[in-house]
Amino acid sequence: MINITFPDGNVRQYEAGVTGLDIAKSISHGLAKKVLSAKVNGEVWDATRPITEDATVQLLTWDDKDGKATFWHSSAHLMAEALEDIYPGVKFGTGPSTDGGFYYDVDPGEHTISSDDFPQIEQKMLELARQKNAYVRKPISIEDAIAFYQEKGDEYKLELLEKRKEEGAEITLYEQGNFTDLCRGPHVPDTGYIKAIKITKVAGAYWQGDENRQQMTRVYGITFPKQKELTEYETMIEEAKQRDHRKLGTELELFMFSDRVGQGLPMWLPKGNQLRDRLMNFLRVEQEKRGYQLVTTPHIGKKDLYVTSGHWEKYGEDSFHPITTPKEGEEFLLKPMNCPHHCEIFGHRPHSYRDLPLRIAEFGTVYRYEQSGELHGLSRVRGFTQDDAHIFCTPDQLKDEFLNVLDLTKTVLSKMGFADFTAQISLRDPEKPEKYIGSDENWNNAERAIIEATAEAGMKTTTELGEAAFYGPKLDFMVKDALGRSWQLGTIQVDYNLPERFELEYIGSDNQAHRPVMIHRAPFGSMERFISILIEHTGGKFPLWLAPEQYTILPISDRFNDYAAEIEQELAKYDIRGTVDDRSEKVGRKIRDAEVKKVPFMLIVGEKEAETGAVSVRKQGDGDVGSMSVAEFAKYFQEHLY
Amino acid sequence: MINITFPDGNVRQYEAGVTGLDIAKSISHGLAKKVLSAKVNGEVWDATRPITEDATVQLLTWDDKDGKATFWHSSAHLMAEALEDIYPGVKFGTGPSTDGGFYYDVDPGEHTISSDDFPQIEQKMLELARQKNAYVRKPISIEDAIAFYQEKGDEYKLELLEKRKEEGAEITLYEQGNFTDLCRGPHVPDTGYIKAIKITKVAGAYWQGDENRQQMTRVYGITFPKQKELTEYETMIEEAKQRDHRKLGTELELFMFSDRVGQGLPMWLPKGNQLRDRLMNFLRVEQEKRGYQLVTTPHIGKKDLYVTSGHWEKYGEDSFHPITTPKEGEEFLLKPMNCPHHCEIFGHRPHSYRDLPLRIAEFGTVYRYEQSGELHGLSRVRGFTQDDAHIFCTPDQLKDEFLNVLDLTKTVLSKMGFADFTAQISLRDPEKPEKYIGSDENWNNAERAIIEATAEAGMKTTTELGEAAFYGPKLDFMVKDALGRSWQLGTIQVDYNLPERFELEYIGSDNQAHRPVMIHRAPFGSMERFISILIEHTGGKFPLWLAPEQYTILPISDRFNDYAAEIEQELAKYDIRGTVDDRSEKVGRKIRDAEVKKVPFMLIVGEKEAETGAVSVRKQGDGDVGSMSVAEFAKYFQEHLY
Repeated sequence: MINITFPDGNVRQYEAGVTGLDIAKSISHGLAKKVLSAKVNGEVWDATRPITEDATVQLLTWDDKDGKATFWHSSAHLMAEALEDIYPGVKFGTGPSTDGGFYYDVDPGEHTISSDDFPQIEQKMLELARQKNAYVRKPISIEDAIAFYQEKGDEYKLELLEKRKEEGAEITLYEQGNFTDLCRGPHVPDTGYIKAIKITKVAGAYWQGDENRQQMTRVYGITFPKQKELTEYETMIEEAKQRDHRKLGTELELFMFSDRVGQGLPMWLPKGNQLRDRLMNFLRVEQEKRGYQLVTTPHIGKKDLYVTSGHWEKYGEDSFHPITTPKEGEEFLLKPMNCPHHCEIFGHRPHSYRDLPLRIAEFGTVYRYEQSGELHGLSRVRGFTQDDAHIFCTPDQLKDEFLNVLDLTKTVLSKMGFADFTAQISLRDPEKPEKYIGSDENWNNAERAIIEATAEAGMKTTTELGEAAFYGPKLDFMVKDALGRSWQLGTIQVDYNLPERFELEYIGSDNQAHRPVMIHRAPFGSMERFISILIEHTGGKFPLWLAPEQYTILPISDRFNDYAAEIEQELAKYDIRGTVDDRSEKVGRKIRDAEVKKVPFMLIVGEKEAETGAVSVRKQGDGDVGSMSVAEFAKYFQEHLY
Repeated sequence: MINITFPDGNVRQYEAGVTGLDIAKSISHGLAKKVLSAKVNGEVWDATRPITEDATVQLLTWDDKDGKATFWHSSAHLMAEALEDIYPGVKFGTGPSTDGGFYYDVDPGEHTISSDDFPQIEQKMLELARQKNAYVRKPISIEDAIAFYQEKGDEYKLELLEKRKEEGAEITLYEQGNFTDLCRGPHVPDTGYIKAIKITKVAGAYWQGDENRQQMTRVYGITFPKQKELTEYETMIEEAKQRDHRKLGTELELFMFSDRVGQGLPMWLPKGNQLRDRLMNFLRVEQEKRGYQLVTTPHIGKKDLYVTSGHWEKYGEDSFHPITTPKEGEEFLLKPMNCPHHCEIFGHRPHSYRDLPLRIAEFGTVYRYEQSGELHGLSRVRGFTQDDAHIFCTPDQLKDEFLNVLDLTKTVLSKMGFADFTAQISLRDPEKPEKYIGSDENWNNAERAIIEATAEAGMKTTTELGEAAFYGPKLDFMVKDALGRSWQLGTIQVDYNLPERFELEYIGSDNQAHRPVMIHRAPFGSMERFISILIEHTGGKFPLWLAPEQYTILPISDRFNDYAAEIEQELAKYDIRGTVDDRSEKVGRKIRDAEVKKVPFMLIVGEKEAETGAVSVRKQGDGDVGSMSVAEFAKYFQEHLY
């Protein structure tokens, strides 16, 4: 008998050789049907692999990230089997799972695989899935494995095996139906688990990511345990397409790009700029309440500044090249981050412990080189504005500062309509202390401060050991949007490195010089990326307080344009901002255009309204909400502001 | 008899050979004593030079820029005479008047001239001035002039004469007392006009501005027609030193520079940043009222953008060098102005005449290379933020837009406490139409629009022919500060060039494509330069609404620190921003420190105040203004806000 310890700490005894699936069956039939793989002593195993010694075991289902990964990895093998059937002689590179499905890089030989072939591949995969072929794990000697692939004539797998041989790794093959693959596993018990299949994309990819080697065909797919989930996924994809911030950004005239200005350099048009300004003002007020002080620093800095900070050595090669001056041979860099400038501000005069914490904030626009192929709307740009701040504090103040930042970030994200968030805590690898700078005492103190602060703030957390930066632990806010997609927002990063490099000091109560701790934080991350997420989260229907155009007045004919202009002026006094659609168009057309522009309120004015000093109000999504005076509308508006 | 036409159009007859001085005498004895020179047919002449033909004549006094220039030029000759007396063998380069006095570049031979010698030079000049020696104009042949300087052995004057010879210029000498100088003139009638003298500075300067040639000694001075004016000037200089924005900027913690970030790149500290933000917010609101729309554009643009705009050809060599990218070989420039970006915004979609005027505004930070020796605090920097806007309009809308901009600029500058301003209008040279781009019709229309708009706005104006840019006429606001110094602020520039280069178009009511006119305008000019002027204008005592720290609470002992903190929170509700001075210092010391920091209000709190819920108010400059409740103080504060 062996002892199996469960995640909740419970221990149960089983016969040696028991599998994850057996354990699940011993708990409930329902669970057994859902188990895809099992985490055994921290390693993900096949649910059908025998456990022979005492172990901690976590059963993995579709709800677990690792469960999904098992499912999609098995699906990659299933697709490979289908491809081998359809394209005889196809050779296989590697076929991993991804965050949203799987792919396989293949060399189709004389064949070509195009999107026209997707239905056939899906069909074949479904057919093989219905056969419920078991995924069978086969440990094998490296020599036998090489012999197998020599016979098959697959030079890609042979190259992979050569590498494994150098590493002295153990080799396993996995077999299902008529297909065998070199694979570390794990896999789901059989192909029958895979009920719904979608091949999504085909693209080119270099073998081993090396542009001098063979171009492979990368076939992407996604699969689900239920047909319903595929349908939901397809709906979500369609909705995401409709909400694509690049599409809505153009339709709502929020921002633009220009080839003459340069790729990846967004230009904020008046409406987008208003949205951006309102977000920044909102954060400005929240920060002021919490003791932040705003500064403004230049968008360039001497190369020296980045030699001091260490950024030049680390990123210099891959950054925008230095700017030289005509006569004096100086070298400047476009600033890729604001922290070195803020360190200079901290360092420009002596500080006492009584001055701390010092919270220096800046909406700082930074520039980072990205290859043009990697640019994507506002999400991946070459210039962006960080809602940045650097907190300089004593080690004792770390926890309170973390609480302060957590409170700010939660307040800000909630106000934006993001309800579902988790704190992901990245700590150091306790077994590799040599990877990190700063004393053990400092690290322990900082990690404890983060953990205690998130607990006190009542946040859901996940913890990743070994994911900390070399200069300090960090916390990321993981946020779910309206389409259920996860985004990383709001990083809080402890830093022991820059205070050291800039030789920052404060005089403690002991009259001695001490080094402050630094916290980097940005609730939005960058205005550009955050707004791209906000656009897609809201589908362009921004909360009223953020809407760039809060209403539009629609006169039913030109005769009422003057009355509409009066209303506009009246509303401005209530700080309600909008426009008059005084085109000579039918009111039906004006309503349709306002719908497309997602204007929250349409105020229709004609004979009756002009006589009674009223407006007929249509609310976006709700339709007609009745006729009211300007004062009544202003009240109604305030009630719907947040 | 000849006809003399006066600036007001009046014509009077005089005998041929009459001088400016004679004409003045014929008008009044008082005027005659004040006349320094005379503008005859647009050229400045000695007041003693005979006029032999019909002419337009303007008599120039100390109140005219050209009158002052005559006075100071004569003073340079007087100083030269003194130097020749004190330093026998001294040789003379050139000695012009400047905006604030005069200088002479001299080669003192074996002597050195230092500030220790200034009293002696002043003394000698006064002595020579009291002799009332006439400045005598002597036309002379070039040969005789060369002979004269060969005998004197002055190689500098000989070099100047060589150049004149090439130009075929007429030569005149001017003589006063024992001194003769090669000079075009004009001069005041005699040295007796110069009553008060100050030698201000001595510095090195290369002969002909060429660093490979002889280093000369440049001696600076300033003179006045009355001793009282010198005294006022000295007081002003001392006051200007106290108000130097670089000194106050450090004392009031408004901004800083860092060598590691780079020279000429200001970093705004929290207090300065608040001041800057308030200024920008104020302008933002005023602009919004007038139909401006804010945008945000990146701080770099592709070289192409500036090739299109023409800036690359014109300024490329002397600018910060291009930024290249690591892999794709792109070339970007730090943006030296915002207009090309705004042209791209205008051009990104079609426009109808109904969309115009389109007023695109941006607080755009730009970077321009300046040699490090020319940098000066915030007034001359390498990076600055323009309160920029570009108005795209039809030619018919020019005048209304000018009125709109004049109104905005006047409103803004008045609110800042600048009461005395003049509009300086720069028109094209009507005799050189080939120097300008754009049709005659457009130029006439634009010039008329500017002239009519300034007249309608009731502004004092001066007009300079030939001072327009090649691409359009412009208007500058000339503002006098509290020390009586003039500053150029608030340029409004018409531009026919960029719309052409960017091929901008709108569809007119005739359904045809037309080119819009563009107006560049910036009421402040740049935030940095404007704030430097504002600091010196106010001596750091900003109007209450702009003060970064509006009050400071001074508890008379630590016991009242909590009460002080309560008051601070109360005041925040009224949007009144300040600090608590909770140091364990005597209240007298706290008051003195608050005076240095120029905090508008000091709120002193002790036993009595804490018991009655009051504060004892001291107003900067006015002292104690009594005890009041927080609500009463808030009301008092509001009354003094502007």
